[in-house]
Order: sequence, then structure tokens, then C-alpha cells
Amino acid sequence: MKDLPDDSFHVFDTTLRDGAQREGINLTVADKLTIARHLDDFGVGFIEGGWPGANPRDTEFFARAREEIDFAHAQLVAFGATRKAGVSAEDDPQVRALLESGAPVITLVAKSHDRHVELALRTTLEENLAMVRETVAYLRSQGRRVFLDCEHFFDGYRANPGYAKQVVSAAHEAGADVVILCDTNGGMLPGQIDAVVRTVLADTGARLGIHAQDDTGCAVANTLAAVDAGATHVQCTANGYGERVGNANLFPVVAALELKYGRRVLPDGALAEMTRISHAIAEVVNLTPSTHQPYVGVSAFAHKAGLHASAIKVDPDLYQHIDPERVGNTMRMLVSDMAGRASIELKGKELGIDLGGDRALVGRIVERVKERELAGYTYEAADASFELLLRQEVEGRARRYFRVESWRAIVEDRPDGTHANEATVKLWAKGERIVATAEGNGPVNALDRALRVALERIYPQLATMELVDYKVRILEGKHGTESTTRVLVSTADGRGEWSTVGVGENVIAASWQALDDAYAYGLLRAGVDPQE
Amino acid sequence: MKDLPDDSFHVFDTTLRDGAQREGINLTVADKLTIARHLDDFGVGFIEGGWPGANPRDTEFFARAREEIDFAHAQLVAFGATRKAGVSAEDDPQVRALLESGAPVITLVAKSHDRHVELALRTTLEENLAMVRETVAYLRSQGRRVFLDCEHFFDGYRANPGYAKQVVSAAHEAGADVVILCDTNGGMLPGQIDAVVRTVLADTGARLGIHAQDDTGCAVANTLAAVDAGATHVQCTANGYGERVGNANLFPVVAALELKYGRRVLPDGALAEMTRISHAIAEVVNLTPSTHQPYVGVSAFAHKAGLHASAIKVDPDLYQHIDPERVGNTMRMLVSDMAGRASIELKGKELGIDLGGDRALVGRIVERVKERELAGYTYEAADASFELLLRQEVEGRARRYFRVESWRAIVEDRPDGTHANEATVKLWAKGERIVATAEGNGPVNALDRALRVALERIYPQLATMELVDYKVRILEGKHGTESTTRVLVSTADGRGEWSTVGVGENVIAASWQALDDAYAYGLLRAGVDPQE
Repeated sequence: MKDLPDDSFHVFDTTLRDGAQREGINLTVADKLTIARHLDDFGVGFIEGGWPGANPRDTEFFARAREEIDFAHAQLVAFGATRKAGVSAEDDPQVRALLESGAPVITLVAKSHDRHVELALRTTLEENLAMVRETVAYLRSQGRRVFLDCEHFFDGYRANPGYAKQVVSAAHEAGADVVILCDTNGGMLPGQIDAVVRTVLADTGARLGIHAQDDTGCAVANTLAAVDAGATHVQCTANGYGERVGNANLFPVVAALELKYGRRVLPDGALAEMTRISHAIAEVVNLTPSTHQPYVGVSAFAHKAGLHASAIKVDPDLYQHIDPERVGNTMRMLVSDMAGRASIELKGKELGIDLGGDRALVGRIVERVKERELAGYTYEAADASFELLLRQEVEGRARRYFRVESWRAIVEDRPDGTHANEATVKLWAKGERIVATAEGNGPVNALDRALRVALERIYPQLATMELVDYKVRILEGKHGTESTTRVLVSTADGRGEWSTVGVGENVIAASWQALDDAYAYGLLRAGVDPQE
Repeated sequence: MKDLPDDSFHVFDTTLRDGAQREGINLTVADKLTIARHLDDFGVGFIEGGWPGANPRDTEFFARAREEIDFAHAQLVAFGATRKAGVSAEDDPQVRALLESGAPVITLVAKSHDRHVELALRTTLEENLAMVRETVAYLRSQGRRVFLDCEHFFDGYRANPGYAKQVVSAAHEAGADVVILCDTNGGMLPGQIDAVVRTVLADTGARLGIHAQDDTGCAVANTLAAVDAGATHVQCTANGYGERVGNANLFPVVAALELKYGRRVLPDGALAEMTRISHAIAEVVNLTPSTHQPYVGVSAFAHKAGLHASAIKVDPDLYQHIDPERVGNTMRMLVSDMAGRASIELKGKELGIDLGGDRALVGRIVERVKERELAGYTYEAADASFELLLRQEVEGRARRYFRVESWRAIVEDRPDGTHANEATVKLWAKGERIVATAEGNGPVNALDRALRVALERIYPQLATMELVDYKVRILEGKHGTESTTRVLVSTADGRGEWSTVGVGENVIAASWQALDDAYAYGLLRAGVDPQE
């Protein structure tokens, strides 16, 4: 590992193995390679890539990772089970697959709960110990570093502490570098973790790690409790992805270690990349980043209450537990009907619009926001729509680049199974009436294209703009398709990205509004003069 | 309080006040009344309703709650600040508004961090103590029970422990029943909370409470650490709603107290309502319930891995930290391409379909699921679509109640600003060709109506079915409207609810598929014989 002083503390990531168990996650090999690159950029010491041999995708991942990735910080780890009962380690094809993966480090999972050995593994307690000892020793003899995960350790310790500790000692004595105590069912609380880790450390002398699941909502605290008790290896997943509720979230764990404990566990500068890397990984796994995730969520440093907003003007440090820049995040002032004038003024300042203490103007904007939010708009997530609204109030009129007379979208499912999507737009721009029709792969796409066809000659700047994200939210949950629909659109022009909102009785009408704002704002950004 | 033995431990909910600060939440008075009813059903001891006087909606809430709700367990609490500097408590209109709210309990917020007193409150440390003493004493003299929130307590204690404790003592000596130590900026970890609560308890003798924010991801653990250290009053919010990252989540806190500590803090039977109440409150605030929330998330007891699935057949208790029924949740087996045959068999059993160990059949189903999930379908969230797929494989052919020839949807925005939404469906049912056209408030609604118009004469059972939820997800985030669209539809017939999935190149085509499955499944449920 470059940059990091020594091997005395391990940040071990298992997003690609245990994190992938999360409901809704389904990773391709390409996804796994991309995530591995992000994790290496972030500077974790170990990346558990999967279970070669058990899963063809994971076998392929190890083969390609070896060829395609030149890791700067991380070592790749293969995960697998101890040998099967009754066969030798070298004859177990699953153990062989671990060696064949080429990974320099291997995490073996072993049962440490006596009932699991008997009921799930269907072997004797003694044979399970032999499986641990022999598999660890065999992999060590083949030149691999070995970590051993004690599955269901804490429940097992409660049921039969003597046997649970025998498993730890068996692995330790056979040459495992770290023995990881796993709260597999996730039912523990920090005090319990602390007590067990302390005792096991004293009684076995093994180097210990912690693997916590979040079923009590305490996985981060449980991980830190184990560190307090002497564990020097933490197993986490990016964004806390994992089975059921999830795993200990890598980001708040390393942030607590670095910022609260003052312990260096990442390379220089890595922590400031945390927000970006968290969101990038969410994008790869195709889950919306949690807005309320500690440290890295877009809401993590967002202030809404009017009361706070006025005090934040005095001293932001009084209202934040850390400077958000340390984790690559930023403070945001939210525009919402709970916010008072102070928030609107701060927001104006953020956007470079001087509201100059004009009380009547600020009051009008507050009213306007309240009224629109009541109708279903949300400006918290649509900065560009808010800026258009703000400018309209400041300048006394809307900046209009075009005026729409009408539009129409048709979707047709034909007997041969193909679809036709066609849209027609009628509008006025620079004094000219334009009618344009276009096809698309959906009605919104067809409308978007028709709008561009109509306008691109007059506003060539539109060619640089592209829709990059599109979200639909039904506002009243209990009326099915009769509800109000809110659409959020993100648009990019190669230099930046902006978000706009539309609300309407149906998804097409709401999308149209958001598109209308998106292009108006894009042209404003491009410095084009409004001319209907 | 009925059912609960005494006042020795307080479960205090502040969803309606502090929870409402969450980005994206905007509650009407009716919403607040509904949530208050749910919280009372759940059996919390105190419901903080808002800040009467500071916010007209909150004033109205207290007036209406007094008239409209007959609380079975909870007492209503009004929140407000200590008197302003330099005026008497009885002359402070904000303090008067607290009395006028009629709430029997009042939570006062006070500054306990010296810099906040000087910079944000702009008064002296001495005057702040007088504000605490006099406001508490005045409200007590008016017959109210008083709790005092020490804002920014833990940061304040770090900066000036002597002053922070003086604020606690001032409130305690003036008659506040509980003094709540607030980690307002949320930067603390459990060990720090434990140490400070112990010291303050020993030094002041005041009854202490805890109010934790989740900025380090440890709010639940911090709340429990305070209880371990002697706090007997916990302030939480439903689903952890709150500013920035959120507040300590009520549900895992009370579940830990009841199930892990064995401490009775709720009325008999309340815990088994937890999942229902969590989801009901999410619905009122119009946020999708977090699928991965501890105890109550739909994924909280969901098992995906093929490895686990086979072991769960042996003994489910080995794989769950609690019986999900204790919190009103259920174990689920997930259908996903990571699942093996064991999962499919268990799922079949759950649906009452015997796959009878037919290995070829199960293998075919696994293949079919993989292939469809690759195309964007998700059966994890669409049980009804999965059952249709399963039955099709088991029975060798799809159950078809109708055969669609073609359909068309038109959305038109007219120059007068109104919209027309019209859909036409051409289909065959019971040997008859039917063409039907209907209007709706959006294209999907128009299609839904046209389909019903076409079919209701032949299948009158459709009249009982209603679309109750509709979700759209764009599957490839970086291509805007050119992405694949996945639609999930929930349908209800008064006896139950089922979910179906559709995937297509556009939202209308995907919605159509989900509707098609929804009605096919509804007719299957109703025991109707398929007849094209």
C-alpha cells in the first residue's frame, strides 16, 4: 500500500461481495470493475471482489481485474468457504478456485456458532475446527495471506462462548492474519460488541476484525465499538449496501476514524473525495444516492429552518459538526415554505443575485414559493427552476425565449408489436411561428426532439444541451394514475448540469414544463438574450 | 397514560416539530393530525406538535388536536423558546402562545453553548440563565409541566462544561421535570454521549433526556448510550425524519429498548403495529418508506443469497435476529438472478404452488427470471407478475383473459392551456373483437379507462379493482428520456393489494404492460376462468 504508513489498521471493503446481496442490486462484471477502481481511488486497503468458483461472474471479475486494473492502494481479496467436511483442502475444488483467482489475500468464511455447524453445515464441531485449521494452513502454504470471517460469531458466542473462541484460536494458530468477528444477523448493540471483542482479544491473542450488519440501526456504532475494544480491521460496504438492512457503511466509519478519532486510515486527500465516490458508486449500482446519508448525502449539510438560516449568517461553524468540504460535500440553503426571508436572501447570494435587502421583493418571492410548493413544485431539488422564478420576480417579467401555442404527443402500439411515438409542437420564437414534428422512442423524447427541431435554427446553443436524468414522482400515493405528477429533469451542456421541475395532471404535461424550464435556463446560462 | 405503569421512562416523539424539518417534508394541519393519531396508536408518551405562535399552521394544529383527537396514550407537547432577553416571561407573546395552545406539557428550547448565547442570541451568559429560570418558573406557575431542551449541549459542554451544566441546573432548580441534552449538530459518537450524560447526571441531579441527530450515523446508538448512562427520556422521530441527515429513529430505539433491553416502554401489543405505523406515516408525509430501514423496511427480513435460502429451510431463527412478527414485519424470500433453486422453491411454496422438486421446471424458471431481470424487470417488487410467470411455466401456457391487437394514446396541449388525453384500445376477449376509447387525466389513466370500458361487460369483476400506486423508474441514468423505463403498479380489490411490473422503451408502453399484468392477476385472484 502506498501512502499508508503500515499494516496496523485495515479498511476492508466488501461492497462487491456482501454489498451485492442488497435487494435491488445486480452487478455485471463491468460494474464490479468500475466500483473496484472507485474504491481503490478512495484508498481502501482491501477490496473483496467476490466468490470465485461459486459464481462465474466473480471468476471472470478476478481474471479481468488482474489484467485491467493497476491498483494504487488496494489489494484484491477472494472470498470463499473452508474446505467441505471429509475432503482435504487441496482436493476441494472451491478452495482451488480461490487459489486460481490469483488474489493475494483470501477471506475464508467459517461457522463459529455450534448450531450452525450442526444444522446448516451438518458436521461435527471437531471436524469444523479441522476444516478451519487445514484450509488456513493450506492457503498459507500456497503463499496467500488469509483472513478468517467467523460467521454468526456474536450469536454463537452467546450460545457457546467456548466453542466460538476455539474457532478463533484454530484460525489464529493455523496462520490467519486477522480473525473477523461477524454480527451476521445484525442483532447486536455497541455495548455487547465492546464486551465480546475485549474478552475474545484477551483470551485468544488473535488480531481481530469486525463485520457488522445494520439490523438494529447500529452497524456504524458497532464497528466503532469494536475498534474501541481493540479490533484493527473493519469490514464495510460503500453506502452501507448489503443484505436485509445493509452492512456497516464505509463512509461514516472512515469519516469517524479520521475526523473524530484523529486516526489516519486513508491516503492523503482521499476523504475529500468521499462524496463524489459515494455518488459514483450509487450510479454504477443504479440506486439513487440516499439524500440523507451521513456526511455524503445532498441533505447532510442542508439547512431548512428559517431560525437556523438567520443564525448561520453569523457563523456557519456553530451549525455544522464538521466543515463539509473535508468530505467533499457543501452546505446548502434550502428554499422551502418553512424558510423565511433569511434563506431566500442567502440563496439569492449563492446564485449571485443581489436582493439588496428589498423587503417587499423578498416577501413576494417567499409568497410565490409557498404558493407553488403547495401546488406540488419543489425547488429544493430544482435550482434552475428556482433561479428562473427568482429572476422573474427581480426583473419584473419572465425571460422568454419562445412562446408555445400548443403541442401534441401520440403513442401507438401497433398489431406487429412496434411502437410509434410522434410529437408536434407549435410555437413562436423571434417573431416567427414554427411548427415542428418529430419521432422519438417515447412521448417525452419525441416532444424533446420536436422542440429542438423547432428551435435549433434560432438558438443553435441548444445543440450542446442534453437531457441526462429524468425522474417522475406521483404526488398523491392513493389515487393511482389520477394523481398529480411531478417531473424533475437534469440537463447538461458539457460545462455543468442543472435541474428543473414541472408539475401537471399527467406525466407528459409535467415533463413538458420541466423541459421548457430546462431549455430556458440553458439559454440563460449560455448568455443568450431572450426574444420571444 | 393508560397501560403504561408509570412516568419513569419517556418515549417522546418530535416528528411533527423536528421531523418536519426534513428536506422534502411539508405537512398540512390535516397531515399533522393524522400523524398524531398514528403516534398515539403506537403508544408514545409525548407528541411534540409544533411551535404555536411561531407558525400559524402549528397554532391551528393545537386548536384542532384539542377538539378532534381523544388521545389514548400520548400527551400533547407545545415547543417554544425561553423568553426574549430583557422582557418578562409573562409579557413575551411567544411564551403566551405556548400557554394559549392548551398543551399540558411545554418543551422550552434554551441555548447551552456559550458562543451561541453570545453570537446567535446576542445576550449575556447571565441573562440567558435568567431567561431559563424565569420562563420555566412562569410556565410551572401556570400549571404546565415543563421539559427543557438544551440546544447544542454536547458542543457547548466541550467548549465550556461549567456553563453548560449551569443551564441544566437553572432549569432543574426552576422546576423543569426533565432536562434534555441535545446533540443538535449531530457530531457525537456513543462513547462521548455516555461520558457526558454520566457526568452531568452526577453533577446536577437533574432528570435527563437525550435528543440525538444522525450526522455521524450513530443517532440510535447515541440515544441508547444516553439511556445506558442514566437518561430516562428519549426524543425521537418516526422513520428518523429530521433536518440534514435526520433524527434518532423512533422505531429502532423503542425496538432495542423492548426487545434487546427487555424494558417495557410501549403499551401491550404496540410493537407488533410498528411496521404498519412506520409505513402509514411515510405515506402521510409523502415519502416512499425506506426499504432498508431496520425492523420495518420491506427488506429488513428479506433473504436473497442462494446460500442462505437453502439454510433457512432448516431453521429460520438461525438467520434472523428477531422474529419479524414481533414488529409486524414478515420474512421474504427474494426472487433474483442471484437466487438459486432453493429460493424459487421456497417462493413457490409461499405462493401455494408446488414445484414438486421438478428440477427441470425449477431450472427453467430460474433461467426465465435471469433473462427478464437482465432486460430490466424486477420481480423482487412485483410478486403478482412473478406469480403469473411461475404459473405460465408450471401450466405450460400463459393465462390470458384477453388479447390486445393494438392501442394508442394521445396527449394534446391546446392553445387555451387545457389538455386532452385520449386512448383507444383494440382487443379480443371471449372470441369477440372490442374497440373502446376513453379519456383520462393523463395518457396512462386514459389507457386504463379504455381497457376497463372494453372489458367490464365481459369481466364485471374489474369494477372492484383500483390502481392505488404507480411508480416510474428510469433504468439507465445517463441517457435522459432515451433510457429504458420500468413501471411498477399496485392494484387493490378491497381484499388485498398486488404489484406488477412493466418494462419498455417509454413510460406509456411500460405502464401498459404493468396494467395488463395487473388485470390478468386480479382476474386470476377473483377465480375467473381465462378465456381469450
